[in-house]
Amino acid sequence: MPTNRQVLLDNRPEGEAVASNFKVVSVDTPALTEGQVLVRHHYLSLDPYMRGRMNESKSYAASQPLGEVMIGGTVGEVVESQHPKYQVGDQVVGMGGWQEYSVVNANEPGALRKADTTHVPLSYYLGAVGMPGVTAWYGLVKIIEPKEGETMVVSAATGAVGSAFAALAKARGCRVVGIAGGPEKCAYAVAELGYDACIDYREHKDMYSLSKALKEACPKGIDGYFENVGGMIMDAVMLRMNAFARVALCGMIAGYNGEPLAMANPALLLINRVKLEGFIVSEHMEVWGEAMKELGTLVAMGKLKPRETVSQGIESAPEAFLGLLKGKNFGKQLVKLI
Amino acid sequence: MPTNRQVLLDNRPEGEAVASNFKVVSVDTPALTEGQVLVRHHYLSLDPYMRGRMNESKSYAASQPLGEVMIGGTVGEVVESQHPKYQVGDQVVGMGGWQEYSVVNANEPGALRKADTTHVPLSYYLGAVGMPGVTAWYGLVKIIEPKEGETMVVSAATGAVGSAFAALAKARGCRVVGIAGGPEKCAYAVAELGYDACIDYREHKDMYSLSKALKEACPKGIDGYFENVGGMIMDAVMLRMNAFARVALCGMIAGYNGEPLAMANPALLLINRVKLEGFIVSEHMEVWGEAMKELGTLVAMGKLKPRETVSQGIESAPEAFLGLLKGKNFGKQLVKLI
Repeated sequence: MPTNRQVLLDNRPEGEAVASNFKVVSVDTPALTEGQVLVRHHYLSLDPYMRGRMNESKSYAASQPLGEVMIGGTVGEVVESQHPKYQVGDQVVGMGGWQEYSVVNANEPGALRKADTTHVPLSYYLGAVGMPGVTAWYGLVKIIEPKEGETMVVSAATGAVGSAFAALAKARGCRVVGIAGGPEKCAYAVAELGYDACIDYREHKDMYSLSKALKEACPKGIDGYFENVGGMIMDAVMLRMNAFARVALCGMIAGYNGEPLAMANPALLLINRVKLEGFIVSEHMEVWGEAMKELGTLVAMGKLKPRETVSQGIESAPEAFLGLLKGKNFGKQLVKLI
Repeated sequence: MPTNRQVLLDNRPEGEAVASNFKVVSVDTPALTEGQVLVRHHYLSLDPYMRGRMNESKSYAASQPLGEVMIGGTVGEVVESQHPKYQVGDQVVGMGGWQEYSVVNANEPGALRKADTTHVPLSYYLGAVGMPGVTAWYGLVKIIEPKEGETMVVSAATGAVGSAFAALAKARGCRVVGIAGGPEKCAYAVAELGYDACIDYREHKDMYSLSKALKEACPKGIDGYFENVGGMIMDAVMLRMNAFARVALCGMIAGYNGEPLAMANPALLLINRVKLEGFIVSEHMEVWGEAMKELGTLVAMGKLKPRETVSQGIESAPEAFLGLLKGKNFGKQLVKLI
């Protein structure tokens, strides 16, 4: 019976999240009962949505309970099985949480999925060909509904969602402009991810300066915007929106630390007859199959080459997560557990 | 050849609009050419959107040119005709502007519509059974898409749009809660317009106080919101929105005087997966027939009893318009010209 190291939420952040909000513990993995599977995690996914779960206040999902294993997506392999559909050695994707092993009730619909690693590396199932990729797909295809020749903009451009968004939008004949933090990320966005241009928001002190850079990068204006960040970046994009632009509102990372961030000029939504929609991908699982098929194909064809930042060992998860919230990662943030 | 008094936009407002932005002039009505019709206006419609047109800045429609007759909807009768489809005495609806007469090219599609006054008073074609009514219809039916039993909220509740919105939403089995300025308007909203409740925003100093009143009036939360105002009222409504709420964004009157009004907490749009859409009814004329039929029927059945505030004479138009912007009118603001 292997020992399982876990990261629990020990206490809630006051303002910024800190490492002492978490606690690492060791427990024995329990014996399996009928229908259960023991999964050894190879990778844990770290994602901005987790910060929202750490708060007690109403967020876009249930709060993470104190004293329990932090929620999170995982990929790994089956090491013990009491379920006829899963064999030892199967590679699987699930929501195992911040721990080295998880016991999964494999009869629960959607609790576990097998991962085909013929053309797609296992870790990608946590990023470009996983929840973040499907998030990009849903926002682009179902909310923004891009037309060929239109201009799409995405913030957090080199993250897992942004990387997938760029490949999906290019495949639809759009001009795609990213917004990211720092010259290295911007260069990578254009060289490796297929962006037509990428703007370093750190070079801009206010929304007017950023908006001017957007005007140069988007000479025909902005038709679709995938929002991962909120705040000043969103305000700047709104100044360049075309009539009938669409906004997929997926994240507001800049406002997670307590104080809500205002939107400077909501009247622009009326002036430009914008359609804006907030969404959580887990409420739209009906698109999963179609989205995963396209994302897997883009990876296999070399048109989606996401980058990963990998930290080693379960005890590194809290610091890696805090770094993610500050934009220190480059591409999908993972924790390697083997 | 009758003399025609006109109100021109003489200069653009700096900040608040004032009477001296306008100028009244007298001109002769010209002789008609083939296809033209001379309409004597009975009523001129005054509407908040006109304030946007007075600015030079990008607004949700073209600027009103200086030195020209202010744009505006009118109802009246044909007094001279060079068009076979229109006879002297026909009652018509058009966009005649702030003047006593207009010469209309009746061949232009949509320039003139005949008004059936059997069951609907002529002036209603500028309000409940006109552009404002169709505006309410589009926002409710096409954007909010209400379900029976849901709770709808509308700001500027006793105005032309709000009055129609309430009747249309009640006809769909919704709870309808209005927001208006002053106890008289609120009492009228409940007694005459069919609102289940109406909140006087003047009794509330901030969004938290108003939001508390909304909680009482909307015990099941808010599923649909028709926004005519913006600012603090919208912020308060957003605090009470249910998951998957829809917002039809039609007006931001509070922000017209230059400085944009911020939205306090746009993250709520994500948290509650809200769909928000800005619109201008004139871009959706395909719904006109269906909307007008329902609105006319509601009036004929006594289920839509809009109130009107009528000022007398073309020279009263500027002051009546400035009063409208301050909420001094009660129901649809008209200028009677005969």
